Amino acid sequence: MKRPTIADVARRAGVSKGAVSYALNGQPGVSEATRQRILTIATEIGFSPSSAARALSAATAGAVGLALCRPARTLGVEPFFMALISGVEAELSARSYALTLQVVSDHDAEIAVYRRWWGERRVDGVLVCDLRSHDRRIPALEHLQLPAVVIGGPGGTGELASIWSDDAAALTEAVEYLVALGHRRIARVGGLPDLRHTAIRTEAFTAVCRRLGLADAVTVSSDYTGEEGGRATRRLLSSAQRPTAVIYDNDVMAVAGLSVAQEMGLTVPTDLSIVAWDDSPLCRLVHPPLTALGRDIAAYGAHAARHLLAVVGGEPAGRVEDETPHLTPRGSTAPPRER
Amino acid sequence: MKRPTIADVARRAGVSKGAVSYALNGQPGVSEATRQRILTIATEIGFSPSSAARALSAATAGAVGLALCRPARTLGVEPFFMALISGVEAELSARSYALTLQVVSDHDAEIAVYRRWWGERRVDGVLVCDLRSHDRRIPALEHLQLPAVVIGGPGGTGELASIWSDDAAALTEAVEYLVALGHRRIARVGGLPDLRHTAIRTEAFTAVCRRLGLADAVTVSSDYTGEEGGRATRRLLSSAQRPTAVIYDNDVMAVAGLSVAQEMGLTVPTDLSIVAWDDSPLCRLVHPPLTALGRDIAAYGAHAARHLLAVVGGEPAGRVEDETPHLTPRGSTAPPRER
Repeated sequence: MKRPTIADVARRAGVSKGAVSYALNGQPGVSEATRQRILTIATEIGFSPSSAARALSAATAGAVGLALCRPARTLGVEPFFMALISGVEAELSARSYALTLQVVSDHDAEIAVYRRWWGERRVDGVLVCDLRSHDRRIPALEHLQLPAVVIGGPGGTGELASIWSDDAAALTEAVEYLVALGHRRIARVGGLPDLRHTAIRTEAFTAVCRRLGLADAVTVSSDYTGEEGGRATRRLLSSAQRPTAVIYDNDVMAVAGLSVAQEMGLTVPTDLSIVAWDDSPLCRLVHPPLTALGRDIAAYGAHAARHLLAVVGGEPAGRVEDETPHLTPRGSTAPPRER
Repeated sequence: MKRPTIADVARRAGVSKGAVSYALNGQPGVSEATRQRILTIATEIGFSPSSAARALSAATAGAVGLALCRPARTLGVEPFFMALISGVEAELSARSYALTLQVVSDHDAEIAVYRRWWGERRVDGVLVCDLRSHDRRIPALEHLQLPAVVIGGPGGTGELASIWSDDAAALTEAVEYLVALGHRRIARVGGLPDLRHTAIRTEAFTAVCRRLGLADAVTVSSDYTGEEGGRATRRLLSSAQRPTAVIYDNDVMAVAGLSVAQEMGLTVPTDLSIVAWDDSPLCRLVHPPLTALGRDIAAYGAHAARHLLAVVGGEPAGRVEDETPHLTPRGSTAPPRER
């Protein structure tokens, strides 16, 4: 037997679901007589306080929150977030959920936003991005008991639900592929070093390079922007023992690296092989198209949204593994000219 | 003398603004004694019904809506929307407004979302994107009386507030510049033809080419994607009288056009000059960097958000002109090799 829903109350009372929620919520929009009738019917059909509370909360939220702790002006650059958001949105729209977006300046501001959203029942749950190594948001969210899914890990997510992908395995695959092509001097331009997935990738890169005996393997830290990615590439390519292959932690830096190679008169891939992370359309727009580590980011966002809605619905806060990013070889990688 | 605010009531009552709004809103969260005390203070200091209503509505919304009528999976490609959203968000965050985002499949779904948002007071106003030539959303929003700012025009926005920029002037400037460099065969790869700003640009392109006596000027319609932009370029460059310069309606198509030129063995800019629209970081990532028509899209978004909050606050629904996009010459334009 199904638990009675707000729709059952609405049908019996001959009013809209909105009217039922107004009545239960003590909001204007229904007459006092209608309000009494609705309350009577709710009691009659056993629309219990808890389901009433859930319906009430659904009436006041019906939204999922995403606070982005990035400078607002830099958000436009990376395709990653818009792809993630579009995937989240595709899943939410299908279930008539809205996405509430807020850009915050730091984690204190982000935690304050979570507190306000939850206190005012503006959201039913939140997606948490850009997991850091010792992330203060995790205990804060545990304390609030606001349903949440952390996009990141594995590890470092406390008791919260999370969704993660095996970046270490993906990076290892890329290095092994470059070594199979004949590369021995491989460099990596990494993302922001205090992000947890950057640390995971750096550790994996060091481990596979040591295992394969690549003495010159080096990771240069960067900040995901094209400017920094370009600068790091220029420095790497100006060194006496320049690398024959570079792996970039995102697509924007890889495209900037390709431009720097062209600017310095190097041919990609014969003089320099390039591997991008995040196989966005950007990688296929340039010439040669970039070999990339990637997965369907929109599908990742949709998966995260489904997981969050399950947690909001009372399912256990599990750790879900998404597909491992895979390598798509294109025109930017080849055996090195000089060995 | 300032009109009393919800903060004044909160301060005098020694409670949070949230508690005041719960009390005025008849929501749980405050005791009956506190509720009565808050109502008394509100009356005492002349916190008027209208400002109470506004505070109440602020308590239930405090959000601005943006419905995007694009396939969710393609939203990640173009930097434009994320840049616009980040600018909108920068302005909203500073005023503690949230942005509610929803991807919709068509204009009927979009109008239904507006109706629901407004009926449930989920938003205080909306930003409307991608204005079409005979746009059904305009009369629907007029009818709803939901505060709105249309990002687009001039014209076609009915009685709604709008923000627009003079795309016709910008396009004319680009054509005149190419002609001054010595180009006579100029083509344009346009965006979706039923968007109003595409029509405005097409009209301006035809007019300036006729005025300057460019007989071969042609606009090829496209859909803003790199795939279509690349295909259109391949067709143009394969024609007997291939153009020496191409203007693209966005950045993604221009980058794709650059790749097609490289793929076909043409050197940019000596064999082909390229002008992009939307001077995103993408234009500076590639080699050579692209000459572009652009403006600060994040600032445009912030301007639109400010205008919307003014309209929400009761100011007249004016038509505001934003800065005209300007031409930034870079390495992708030069005099043609063959005249």
